[in-house]
Amino acid sequence: MRVLGVDPGLTRCGVGVVEGVAGRPLTMLGVGVVRTPPDAELGRRLVAIEQGIEQWLDEHRPECVAVERVFSQHNVRTVMGTAQASAVAMLCAARRGIPVALHTPSEVKAAVTGSGRADKAQVGAMVTRLLRLDAPPKPADAADALALAICHIWRAPAQNRLQQAVALHASKGRTP
Amino acid sequence: MRVLGVDPGLTRCGVGVVEGVAGRPLTMLGVGVVRTPPDAELGRRLVAIEQGIEQWLDEHRPECVAVERVFSQHNVRTVMGTAQASAVAMLCAARRGIPVALHTPSEVKAAVTGSGRADKAQVGAMVTRLLRLDAPPKPADAADALALAICHIWRAPAQNRLQQAVALHASKGRTP
Repeated sequence: MRVLGVDPGLTRCGVGVVEGVAGRPLTMLGVGVVRTPPDAELGRRLVAIEQGIEQWLDEHRPECVAVERVFSQHNVRTVMGTAQASAVAMLCAARRGIPVALHTPSEVKAAVTGSGRADKAQVGAMVTRLLRLDAPPKPADAADALALAICHIWRAPAQNRLQQAVALHASKGRTP
Repeated sequence: MRVLGVDPGLTRCGVGVVEGVAGRPLTMLGVGVVRTPPDAELGRRLVAIEQGIEQWLDEHRPECVAVERVFSQHNVRTVMGTAQASAVAMLCAARRGIPVALHTPSEVKAAVTGSGRADKAQVGAMVTRLLRLDAPPKPADAADALALAICHIWRAPAQNRLQQAVALHASKGRTP
């Protein structure tokens, strides 16, 4: 499975492509950051993010896009920008018919480090190890995007089983 | 000036087109709601909103799109969806090179009713009067979208003067 992970943000949108299946060594196919100037108009920044994400989709043709699920608990200004950048990433994927999966930051941390409360350095270290890189990807947004993709590859089998069970239950529960 | 007002939301995205200039009677050219099913996947909902907004832009060719500025003070779940829907509206406009203006709910209320704390009914009543309609547009999201467009037409002259002053100041302050 080939997954594009997106750590959404207006100023820095981390992107990383990982290929593999659960239980086997994973391969990094690409990592980077889509940047937009903080002093540009919001609309233009969203267009720049769209163009950046489209390039990554064109180049890597992922089968799934994993985006960080945004919560509103944190800094108000940052969160709104994060929500808007994530909307653009989801829109780009859904427009192409590519499934979008959302994972919370703690799900991602737990998947790659074993602890939902791991810090950035720990996540970076595990991403480096799991993808057999020479050094942690920088900035942290890039490493987080790879962690999202890894998290999705590892969680996908369980999620698929769950979705199938829910679908089966729903189809049985409905009158024909 | 022809303005498309957008009251962003995932389930109901209000849209309204108003034409006119400050100080003259205004004309409503269209009003409606772009709806997406709450049980659909988020990515698909964003695609549906994009298609809806594109249709309104195609049909009415506004010179400006006025979108409600989203704050994160309110209900967490609603706000994230509102931010995401607003991102799609801004993206659609900016992609076409149409200027995007953001107005806060209290700016809009103050513009059409004289009070930043007016309720929905008051806003609906004033929109009905200002656009010489037979009845308040429903749902409230549609009326709010028209109020946004009216607010923008009335505030635009002042905003333009401010922007020109800022630009002049910036150009004088910079070394050549």
